[in-house]
Amino acid sequence: MTGQFAGGDLSRLRQLNTLAVVHALRRQPPRTLTEVARAAGLSRPATEDVVRELEAQGWVAQVDPAAGTMGRPARRYRFRSDAGWVLGVDIGGHTVRAIVADLDGQTQFGTRQPVSPAAGRADRLAVVDKVVAECLAGAGRTGAEMWATTVATSGLVDATGRVALSVALPEWTGLHLAEHLRRLVSGAVLVENDSRLAALAETWRGVARYARDVVYLLAGLRTGAGLIIAGQAHRGFGGAAGEIGALPEMGWIRAQEHLRDWPGTPDGADPDDSAGFVFAAAREGDRSALAAVRRYVKDLALGASALVLALDPQLVVVGGGFSRSADVILEPFRRELDKRCIRTPEVLQSALGEDAVAVGAVKHALDHLERHIFDPGSGLAAPEPPR
Amino acid sequence: MTGQFAGGDLSRLRQLNTLAVVHALRRQPPRTLTEVARAAGLSRPATEDVVRELEAQGWVAQVDPAAGTMGRPARRYRFRSDAGWVLGVDIGGHTVRAIVADLDGQTQFGTRQPVSPAAGRADRLAVVDKVVAECLAGAGRTGAEMWATTVATSGLVDATGRVALSVALPEWTGLHLAEHLRRLVSGAVLVENDSRLAALAETWRGVARYARDVVYLLAGLRTGAGLIIAGQAHRGFGGAAGEIGALPEMGWIRAQEHLRDWPGTPDGADPDDSAGFVFAAAREGDRSALAAVRRYVKDLALGASALVLALDPQLVVVGGGFSRSADVILEPFRRELDKRCIRTPEVLQSALGEDAVAVGAVKHALDHLERHIFDPGSGLAAPEPPR
Repeated sequence: MTGQFAGGDLSRLRQLNTLAVVHALRRQPPRTLTEVARAAGLSRPATEDVVRELEAQGWVAQVDPAAGTMGRPARRYRFRSDAGWVLGVDIGGHTVRAIVADLDGQTQFGTRQPVSPAAGRADRLAVVDKVVAECLAGAGRTGAEMWATTVATSGLVDATGRVALSVALPEWTGLHLAEHLRRLVSGAVLVENDSRLAALAETWRGVARYARDVVYLLAGLRTGAGLIIAGQAHRGFGGAAGEIGALPEMGWIRAQEHLRDWPGTPDGADPDDSAGFVFAAAREGDRSALAAVRRYVKDLALGASALVLALDPQLVVVGGGFSRSADVILEPFRRELDKRCIRTPEVLQSALGEDAVAVGAVKHALDHLERHIFDPGSGLAAPEPPR
Repeated sequence: MTGQFAGGDLSRLRQLNTLAVVHALRRQPPRTLTEVARAAGLSRPATEDVVRELEAQGWVAQVDPAAGTMGRPARRYRFRSDAGWVLGVDIGGHTVRAIVADLDGQTQFGTRQPVSPAAGRADRLAVVDKVVAECLAGAGRTGAEMWATTVATSGLVDATGRVALSVALPEWTGLHLAEHLRRLVSGAVLVENDSRLAALAETWRGVARYARDVVYLLAGLRTGAGLIIAGQAHRGFGGAAGEIGALPEMGWIRAQEHLRDWPGTPDGADPDDSAGFVFAAAREGDRSALAAVRRYVKDLALGASALVLALDPQLVVVGGGFSRSADVILEPFRRELDKRCIRTPEVLQSALGEDAVAVGAVKHALDHLERHIFDPGSGLAAPEPPR
């Protein structure tokens, strides 16, 4: 039998070798050629050829040998995670956030600005433009240096990056968000649902890192859900997965009212701030506050139980603004789940809090680059040289 | 750059070549060595080596040249789909079914026997033994020739093949079904939830072949659901996915009562047969029957809407015993979904009816073989020779 790789030819082999070297260097301390050759499963001369080519293209850099080293030290190489950049933007009801990160996902700069929940399309987009400009400037980058950008929004997003339906944000349905962002950055622009991105963030850097199937609950002024199934953010056929709150029987539509209507909120306070007062009073043992929290948690748990019974996840993550009060919410929430579910999964507080959505947007943009640049499965494309 | 396959060595290459040839022959008309070499991307001498080896092991057979062919015809080879067999068993409340199929999934023999819904563990298992024996005999096979067997049951099944919880079947919780079946057949014995297997069957040979995300509804004397997500039957972390019917708010627990309690059912009829009378009367336009169907459909659609809103599937398949009356059920069901869902998916009647579960069990057993014998990704194992 001759040793022939099924379907293989020399240029594909070259691409495979290039990717093997990239993977041997990415997210690693600097390595010598010998170490790279071992990790990539290549011969030493083949490795040297590929590393030279990647260095010429700007993907790989030599690292200065440590001072005081005896003799002639072996040259070490590192992957240039600053060869490209990604941008994550979170357009919320009350706040717009942005993060610039490198190809390893290290945050270079993050920033945010408040926005009125009542702001219309033009006003909200003006805040978006300002936050993106601030974030790029803070990271010392320009929009032209972004390789991929993901924008998070509430509601349903179609495959072209248009907001197909948004109940939470005024004048938002029909907006072509991808198009708007393309005026600010180059590279791919993706738009995705905020709860889904927050779920993704928790599997990346949060409390769901070890879990394959996760129900993420956005518990805040809105209630939403993002699903991770078999390690992937689940979009659904039309991008509408996780919208169980639309079913009135699930309680999510009325859930926040129990907090908003609490009579103990000081006169003149913004109704949006009432939750904070309720949770604080409940923490002190106030009976009517505890009752309001119980009613809120019961409604939250009803929709959550439907998701748990449907999917049987390993983990439920409670995130969103209210998750700061996990000490008040989580125990009664677990008890409510336990009453309704066949198998109650672990319930954890979000590790990322209100940053989860923007962090998830960064991860989503990086995943896009992984699929289109670094994945040997996707047509065996070798990395494109940095622009 | 030397042409070296990352991580490759000669024995892996041999396995890859063997699998490339197997894939070039499986589910194909007989092929010549030249055709196999082209399809597998191998050299002609390498192909000949591999085909000889597979022929000696019993995986591949020469096909007699067509009579009357002029000159010396090229030899043609076929994959021996009869080199191994799989068994699918469906243990239902009223019926036990079994199917023996070959490695291409072609049914060799199928059979069934009624069983009383009230039958306890021992009586039901006695029927299972009888049906399996009949099915093997009908296919001209023995239990020792089965490479993989999947058994379908209602309820939750743990990873070892034990029924962790069954509400529908008497004395069923705690039964180690895999162990019981291992006394009848050799090879792997797998146990899986019946709705999940029916969903799998619809994606294989039914109406869901083109769909990646599917909600399958088992609409019958019980109501259940099986989920297909990204082309895979979704089990969940503890095998409890799809159990949304456990939530009383979802209506599935009471759904069948609307049919069972219909006053038009003839005196003395088995209450389990009342649905047939209701559907028949509704078909004739009987008002009270139509009202009973509407109440049933409304409850069915409530739980279905929760699943649709959670997952946003491409397709909902209505299967189970009641799906024979799709002409009466489907239109009102679609209307109810439409009222509740953000995006109403296509709704189709099962193509496989009451055979779906056993067909899905066969597919599940075949998938097991694909993963453990024919998949180059799973440790690059070459096919094991037939026993």
